[in-house]
Amino acid sequence: MKVQTLEVSLGDRSYPIHIGKGLLTQADLILPHLKRKQVAIVSNTTVAPLYMETLVNTLTQAGVSVIQIILPDGEAYKNSETLNTIYDALLKAHCERNTTLIALGGGVIGDLTGYAAATFLRGVPFIQIPTTLLSQVDSSVGGKTGINHPLGKNMIGAFYQPKLVLADISTLTTLPQREYSAGVAEVIKYGLIRDADFFDWLETNMHLLMALDDQVVAYAIYRSCQNKAEVVVADEHEAGERALLNLGHTFGHAIENAMGYGVWLHGEAVAAGTMLAADLSHRLGWLSTQEIARMDALFKLAKLPLNAPKLSVERYLYLMQLDKKVAEGQIRLVLQQAIGKAVMTADYDKTMLNQTLQAIA
Amino acid sequence: MKVQTLEVSLGDRSYPIHIGKGLLTQADLILPHLKRKQVAIVSNTTVAPLYMETLVNTLTQAGVSVIQIILPDGEAYKNSETLNTIYDALLKAHCERNTTLIALGGGVIGDLTGYAAATFLRGVPFIQIPTTLLSQVDSSVGGKTGINHPLGKNMIGAFYQPKLVLADISTLTTLPQREYSAGVAEVIKYGLIRDADFFDWLETNMHLLMALDDQVVAYAIYRSCQNKAEVVVADEHEAGERALLNLGHTFGHAIENAMGYGVWLHGEAVAAGTMLAADLSHRLGWLSTQEIARMDALFKLAKLPLNAPKLSVERYLYLMQLDKKVAEGQIRLVLQQAIGKAVMTADYDKTMLNQTLQAIA
Repeated sequence: MKVQTLEVSLGDRSYPIHIGKGLLTQADLILPHLKRKQVAIVSNTTVAPLYMETLVNTLTQAGVSVIQIILPDGEAYKNSETLNTIYDALLKAHCERNTTLIALGGGVIGDLTGYAAATFLRGVPFIQIPTTLLSQVDSSVGGKTGINHPLGKNMIGAFYQPKLVLADISTLTTLPQREYSAGVAEVIKYGLIRDADFFDWLETNMHLLMALDDQVVAYAIYRSCQNKAEVVVADEHEAGERALLNLGHTFGHAIENAMGYGVWLHGEAVAAGTMLAADLSHRLGWLSTQEIARMDALFKLAKLPLNAPKLSVERYLYLMQLDKKVAEGQIRLVLQQAIGKAVMTADYDKTMLNQTLQAIA
Repeated sequence: MKVQTLEVSLGDRSYPIHIGKGLLTQADLILPHLKRKQVAIVSNTTVAPLYMETLVNTLTQAGVSVIQIILPDGEAYKNSETLNTIYDALLKAHCERNTTLIALGGGVIGDLTGYAAATFLRGVPFIQIPTTLLSQVDSSVGGKTGINHPLGKNMIGAFYQPKLVLADISTLTTLPQREYSAGVAEVIKYGLIRDADFFDWLETNMHLLMALDDQVVAYAIYRSCQNKAEVVVADEHEAGERALLNLGHTFGHAIENAMGYGVWLHGEAVAAGTMLAADLSHRLGWLSTQEIARMDALFKLAKLPLNAPKLSVERYLYLMQLDKKVAEGQIRLVLQQAIGKAVMTADYDKTMLNQTLQAIA
C-alpha cells in the first residue's frame, strides 16, 4: 500500500501528514525532521506494549538515542500532574532545545505531549504518531495542544504545530471497537459541517469502514485530514471557520464533564452532542426530518450512542457556559443549516435550546 | 514629562512600549488595546497595596470590569502551584478568550501572568505594567514568559508577546535599593554586549541614575528597551543574537539555583555572573585589564555584588549544565570580546573555565 502524503501549509510552520501501513518501521520518514538524533517518545501503558518496541528499534537502528516516557492511560490523566511527569523525565534526561518529542498514542497522549513540547524550554520540536482513528483524523491536525482543568476540558493549552504526523493504519487493528467508533464520529463530522459529498460516500462505505478495509480507512483518514487542514490553514487560531469543527462539542464537553472525563469517550459525547445540535437546528427550521434520519442512521451504523445522558436543563446550561466558545456571556453553538453546511451562532431562540435540553429527560 | 513611545516591530505581534510618569492614571493608553472591557489584573502582596487601587480606579472609571488576582511575592512562587491559582481565579470568574490579563508588578508577576495568558484557553490578550526597573528594561520586552521547575529556572514557558507595555517610572520611587540596583545590572548589560556608547554614557550618569533623576531614568529605560527590542526583532525565538542578552546568565542561574531562588536577586546574580564571564574573557585574551576595571567600577557605583558565592567547581559545572543554552552536551557561554561586543560560544578553552571557577574559592 502506497504512502499518501498531505501537506498542511502554514508558512514556516508547515508540515506533512503521511498516511499508510507499517509506517512505524520507516526511519526515512522521520529522520529528515530531527534537528538532533535524540528523541523522547511519550506513550501510555496501553499503547507502549504494542508499538513502542517497533518504533524504538526503527530509531535506534538509525542511530537515534531514545528516551521513553510511559504514562498511565486515560483522559483522567490529561492533567497538570501528568504533564509534570513529562517535564521531570525530560529534565532528568538532560533533554535540550533540539530534542524532539514524539507522541505515540491517541488524542490524550498527543495533547499532553504537544503541550509539553510547546512549553518545555519555551518550545522544542514535536512529532505526532497517532494510533487511534480519532487522533489520526482530528487531534493530530491543527496544532491544538493542552490539558484539562478540574473546572473544564482543555482549559489550559497552546497552539503548537508538529513537524510531522505519521498516521499508521496498522495501529487501528488493535483499537477497541468503541474507540474506533468514536473516531468515526469525527469522520462523519467533516461530512456534516462542510463536505456533503463525503457524507454521501460515508453512507455508501460505512460497512467497509467499520470492517477496517485498508483502502476505505486510508481514504476516510486522508479526506478527513484534508478537510481539517483546509479549515486550519484558513484559520489557525480559531477566529472563524475553524470553530465549525466543534460541531457537537459544546454539548459534548458538557456530557464528558458531567459524567467524569473518560466515562463517555470524546467521540461518543460528540456524536450525542451532534444529535442535540441537530435537534436544535431542526427546531430552528434548518435541518429537515429526513436529514435528521440520515444522520441518525449513519451514527447507528457506526455503533455510536445517539442519546445524551439525562441531566437537568440547568445542569446542561451551567456546563455549556464553561465552554471556551462562550463570548460576552452568550453560549455560541455550531448548528447545521443542512448536511454539509454548518454555522456558528449565538443568535438562536434560547427557548428552543431549552426545549432541546428538556427533550432529553 | 512627556510620554516616550517605542514600537516593537514583530509583524502582527507588534506592540508599543510607553515610558513616562503617572501612566497608571491614563486610561486612554490602555483602552484601545482591550478587545472587551474586562480585565484580570495580576499583582502581588507587595505591589498591590501600592498601585492596585490607582489602576483599578482608572479602569473602572472608563467602564472596564476588573478582576483582581493577588499572589504571594517572590521568585519562590514562580511555580506551577501559583500558576494554578491564576487559572482557578480566571475560571471561577468565567473569564473568556477576549478577557485581557494585566501584569502589575516585577519580573515574576510578568513571567507568571504572561505564561498564564499564553496558555489560558490556548491564549488570551496580555498587557504588561512592570513596576521594577529590572522588568521595565528586561522582562517586559521580548515575550519570554514562564515558570521555574524544581530542577531549573524558567524551564517551562512560552514565547508570547504582550499587546502593550506601560513603564511608569513613578513606581520606581517605592522600589527597595537592592532591587533597583539589580535592575541597573541589566541596564549595564546592554552597554556591555552591544552598545559601547551607552556604557560610556552610564559611566558619566550613574550617580544620577542611582539618584532616580527622572530624565536620566527615562533615558536609561528607553535606550535599554531599544537595544533589547532591536535584538528581539532580529531574533524572536532566540536562535542567534538574542542569546547574547544572556550575558552572565549561565553563571547567574547557577548562583540563583545554588542559593535558592530569591536569596540572590536575579540582577545581582547576573552582575556577579557577568564578572565571571569577564574573568574568563580576560583569560582568553579578549577583555583587557583596564576594561575589567571599568566594569568593576561601574557595578560598584551601582551597588552590585561582584563576588560569586564560594561553591565547588563541580557544583558550578553541574548547575551550569542545566542551563537551556546547553547544546549537544556543551556549555555555551556568552563572553565578551570588548566592552560593547559579546559573542556566544561553546568553543573556549575548558581549562580556563575551570580556572575562573577555581578563582572564586
